Amino acid sequence: MNSRVEDLIYTISKLPGLGPRSARRIVIDLICGKSRNLGERLVHNLIETLDTIRDCKVCRNIDEKEICYVCRSNKRDSSTICVVQDVSDLLALEKSGAFNGKYHVLRDLLSAVRGTNPKNLGIEALLKRVKKDDVKEVILALNPTMEGDNTRYYILEKLKPLKVKTSSLANGVPIGGELEYLDEGTLEAALNFRTTEE
Amino acid sequence: MNSRVEDLIYTISKLPGLGPRSARRIVIDLICGKSRNLGERLVHNLIETLDTIRDCKVCRNIDEKEICYVCRSNKRDSSTICVVQDVSDLLALEKSGAFNGKYHVLRDLLSAVRGTNPKNLGIEALLKRVKKDDVKEVILALNPTMEGDNTRYYILEKLKPLKVKTSSLANGVPIGGELEYLDEGTLEAALNFRTTEE
Repeated sequence: MNSRVEDLIYTISKLPGLGPRSARRIVIDLICGKSRNLGERLVHNLIETLDTIRDCKVCRNIDEKEICYVCRSNKRDSSTICVVQDVSDLLALEKSGAFNGKYHVLRDLLSAVRGTNPKNLGIEALLKRVKKDDVKEVILALNPTMEGDNTRYYILEKLKPLKVKTSSLANGVPIGGELEYLDEGTLEAALNFRTTEE
Repeated sequence: MNSRVEDLIYTISKLPGLGPRSARRIVIDLICGKSRNLGERLVHNLIETLDTIRDCKVCRNIDEKEICYVCRSNKRDSSTICVVQDVSDLLALEKSGAFNGKYHVLRDLLSAVRGTNPKNLGIEALLKRVKKDDVKEVILALNPTMEGDNTRYYILEKLKPLKVKTSSLANGVPIGGELEYLDEGTLEAALNFRTTEE
């Protein structure tokens, strides 16, 4: 195969969720007519985005401006900070429309194996914000995995001296989920935190 | 969300095999540090490829040159042409190493619904090659779908007057496949075309 095409397939196969086969399919489609103008639009969009989008100085979300659209908004409740792992979690919560506070994006989780340390997660900056902005509650919306739990406990420890209210997302049956396909941990949580009908 | 990021997510979600969620994941990863230099490499590779790769004038494969690497090679048997739907099928066959002839890439299949006609598939060019290059066999390696079958019959009809040998790929149990998960059509074909042990 042509080496330029091979390079492009290799690069695309390194994107999250893709592999050599799906990358090959994408590249063939981009080159062979059908999606050719899609390819040109992709180049244009990529250059524009990579050139202009940067990390928010306050919460580590992404935006064109130094301070992101969530942090800039004065319609949002600054007294509640929701801690999430990644920008994609922030976007998912925004899409739900269920949260109207501010965020702190860790961008990673604590991991002894990968050698991430608290500095990488911007936890000092989070603590400073809690002190400075008169924050009333910190919601820890981290994935219920080993690393997520470790990181949550670490942040909870750090927040303790600040006497701020802390909370975590509820565990339970996902809406639309079927009991028989749920793992035991989820079912146990759903039972333990069952809600009483009034 | 930022509109440039949204544009990029939308463009990526239009690539084959991707949707809004997987596109969002890719974009977040490209922007948020971890794959940032991957993004720059992607732009570079895309520009290079889109600028230089074109369709082979003979077989409609893709290459930097006017005549592709398969058609240029004098180590390959010009008397056998394998007809495939897409460049990805050609690449899959090349990877198998089981074919040493030349190709003809249709780039599409006949479809009344989508209104593709034989001109789009370069069938006239294929017939000319068969006449001119003293081709002995045309292998029709099309997917066993409705459109694939229709296209195969159409090409077979067109080849008939040229008295060239024609063949199609064998149907049967894929190597490594498990009988219990195969559809009935495949099992029927595997039974009908069973090979007798000597």
